[in-house]
Amino acid sequence: MEPVNIGLLGMGTVGGGTVTVLTRNSAEIARRAGREIRLAHAAARQYDPSISGLEQIGRIGEDAFAVVEDPEIDIVIELIGGYSPARELVLKAIQNGKHVVTANKALIALHGNEIFAAAREKGVVVAFEAAVAGGIPIIKALREGLSANHIEWIAGIINGTGNFILSEMRDKCRDFADVLAEAQALGYAEADPTFDVEGIDAAHKLTILGSLAFGIPLQFDKTFTEGISKIQAQDVAYASELGYRIKHLGIARRCGHGIEMRVHPTLIPHRRLIANVDGVMNAVLVKGDAVGPTLYYGAGAGSLPTASAVVADVVDVARALTTDADNRVPHLAFQPDELSDVPVLSMEEVETACYLRISALDQPGVMAEIAGILGAEGISIEAIKQKEPEEGETYVPLIMLTHRVLEGSMNQAIDRIEALETVKGEVMRIRMETLAG
Amino acid sequence: MEPVNIGLLGMGTVGGGTVTVLTRNSAEIARRAGREIRLAHAAARQYDPSISGLEQIGRIGEDAFAVVEDPEIDIVIELIGGYSPARELVLKAIQNGKHVVTANKALIALHGNEIFAAAREKGVVVAFEAAVAGGIPIIKALREGLSANHIEWIAGIINGTGNFILSEMRDKCRDFADVLAEAQALGYAEADPTFDVEGIDAAHKLTILGSLAFGIPLQFDKTFTEGISKIQAQDVAYASELGYRIKHLGIARRCGHGIEMRVHPTLIPHRRLIANVDGVMNAVLVKGDAVGPTLYYGAGAGSLPTASAVVADVVDVARALTTDADNRVPHLAFQPDELSDVPVLSMEEVETACYLRISALDQPGVMAEIAGILGAEGISIEAIKQKEPEEGETYVPLIMLTHRVLEGSMNQAIDRIEALETVKGEVMRIRMETLAG
Repeated sequence: MEPVNIGLLGMGTVGGGTVTVLTRNSAEIARRAGREIRLAHAAARQYDPSISGLEQIGRIGEDAFAVVEDPEIDIVIELIGGYSPARELVLKAIQNGKHVVTANKALIALHGNEIFAAAREKGVVVAFEAAVAGGIPIIKALREGLSANHIEWIAGIINGTGNFILSEMRDKCRDFADVLAEAQALGYAEADPTFDVEGIDAAHKLTILGSLAFGIPLQFDKTFTEGISKIQAQDVAYASELGYRIKHLGIARRCGHGIEMRVHPTLIPHRRLIANVDGVMNAVLVKGDAVGPTLYYGAGAGSLPTASAVVADVVDVARALTTDADNRVPHLAFQPDELSDVPVLSMEEVETACYLRISALDQPGVMAEIAGILGAEGISIEAIKQKEPEEGETYVPLIMLTHRVLEGSMNQAIDRIEALETVKGEVMRIRMETLAG
Repeated sequence: MEPVNIGLLGMGTVGGGTVTVLTRNSAEIARRAGREIRLAHAAARQYDPSISGLEQIGRIGEDAFAVVEDPEIDIVIELIGGYSPARELVLKAIQNGKHVVTANKALIALHGNEIFAAAREKGVVVAFEAAVAGGIPIIKALREGLSANHIEWIAGIINGTGNFILSEMRDKCRDFADVLAEAQALGYAEADPTFDVEGIDAAHKLTILGSLAFGIPLQFDKTFTEGISKIQAQDVAYASELGYRIKHLGIARRCGHGIEMRVHPTLIPHRRLIANVDGVMNAVLVKGDAVGPTLYYGAGAGSLPTASAVVADVVDVARALTTDADNRVPHLAFQPDELSDVPVLSMEEVETACYLRISALDQPGVMAEIAGILGAEGISIEAIKQKEPEEGETYVPLIMLTHRVLEGSMNQAIDRIEALETVKGEVMRIRMETLAG
């Protein structure tokens, strides 16, 4: 069979890994794909000249647009990242009848609907396995492996940096800022860590997973996003005492009147398998009505793991070159004219149990006052733990676990508790999930 | 698009589940597949008349051969199990130009090479996701999701009955026979539990996984198989004291001079994620050179979970109906003329660390004698634990962990130790794996 010619845009961390994997494993990949995958043309402003396999690229230039215009290229791999010029390059490649493989979660989450519509019109494939959970083939699992199922919910640890920070905070009783600095030194966190620690990166990925699971258009702006920067070492410790771990989860759940899409720190029972996914590793738990719970675990980032997903997509697309477009796996798992308009719920409409940490004056009647406010909002309390005051401290941490409650009611209760004169500062609220059934 | 017509052979546990999933989720499945999947013709000697969705089957008869001869049928689902007449039915269906979906691990492990050759000749697909690890899409992950990787090893908990028994033995300090009886009462174990507890079922599945991972023909007869029936409650307890769990693993590993294929009880460090997979659940850990370790977890058996995999295969095959045969995913992951003849090693050639439990006379010099035998075979000892003798007992359990050693050397050492007059009965040997890197 004819070789497939690849055009590569970007040779940073993932781009370099892609060159390495495609060249190092070229024989084995060809034994699987039934044809040679050839790196014909690459574009990068700058790159590490020691990338293994670099010498096997047909031609290396600086102009990414020259690659998407190159008539020899069958598949364009976009690994530049960011919104622009990635969007323009991908749309141009599609317009030129080329298939596209990308690892760009931000691009897909925000511009995926437009890109898939363009691809559909031209009869080409846009593959994006590497955009979610790095090397874990979670998109393939959701879109193909679980295609028999009515998906009920997904809960994923889909940001390695955030998981590394929370794992270190727990294992070593360290503070957030302290661990973040270490993660930056280790290269696990960017100099500007906002995307990771404020949950934006996870929200990009969850937006994609939610569409694949429920057959809805991509709606990044409707995904509720809360980061981990406010979590304190004491929250991790108290959660642990109560039998829970704090994980930064992306949760997509179908419920009666719509779909919940939310990224936030979450208390989960410590015996759950996903509670034991530590360090920079990712894991996605998917609950289908037929299969029950399934979990997918692996490296969520990094040069070679992400390249693993990129190259798997290339092999898939190479097979699809001769398939009639109507019979390919749809970009968003469901046929494009079969997407559903079921609403994504606002966070106020979502129900979860909560962990609350309140700095309250250590005096009689305070707890009754707080319990009264919760009761008035219809919030029932599952457990209360009052810590001993530290020497000379007049405020003590009051830890409460509530039963499931509407976010809207909890917001009102928190407002009222924070207004109490006997309470200092903000109430720390962390949502809880059992991740059962 | 035209509906796809399904012929169903067998309506037992998995067959009934397949009817239920295909009918209950038919709208959602059609939204994904882009066409209707229609249960046109089923054959079963007997079936539960309360199966949900039964009324939507076009025609139900007793003659399975009538289904594979039915000209209306596009895809035959074989869920009869066993070797015969499953083999004849599948070959006949292929001969008639029909695609086949099967959950039959025994059939694929033993007759897969013949069946795939016949399918290749006729240009049809034989899909078997449900044959390994039930609802977990592990075959898709290995064959497609990890296609960029040089797979280094696989280790899987791929028999739910065995895992249930070992989990119960550990959690409740119970004996094997006792838990087996309970598993039988709960319906987790067959009346004749040989296939499950002696590792044959796991060996069928491992044979398939090994071929997919390494591009070798199916070679069930070369897979080393040891069950869990000799594991005693005390072994589980001693392993636990030493920081390990005992799991019944299927392990396929590439090494310098060939491929290891082995099913046996295995000590693994208790902090590994897979060590925490309990009860009837399955999990497969795959180590690829690019992606690193990935893990896939879910229900390995049961009506609806297995049906989930069967129906996902049906959707895949429905998409492949219009694909030219050369561009489909190869049955054994690698193109059929690209399979490799790298040898499967005999167990004597395999190296593992070992846990040994020896009933030795509680008197001076015995431990030195045993250590001397191990030393003479070049086996070095990592840890020794001598338990206190029970009241009135002259023999005490001596627990040893060894460093990695060739199975052949260990066999000789065990023979010599068992011949000692100071040692009673057989030496209990359980292999160990770190499952790291």
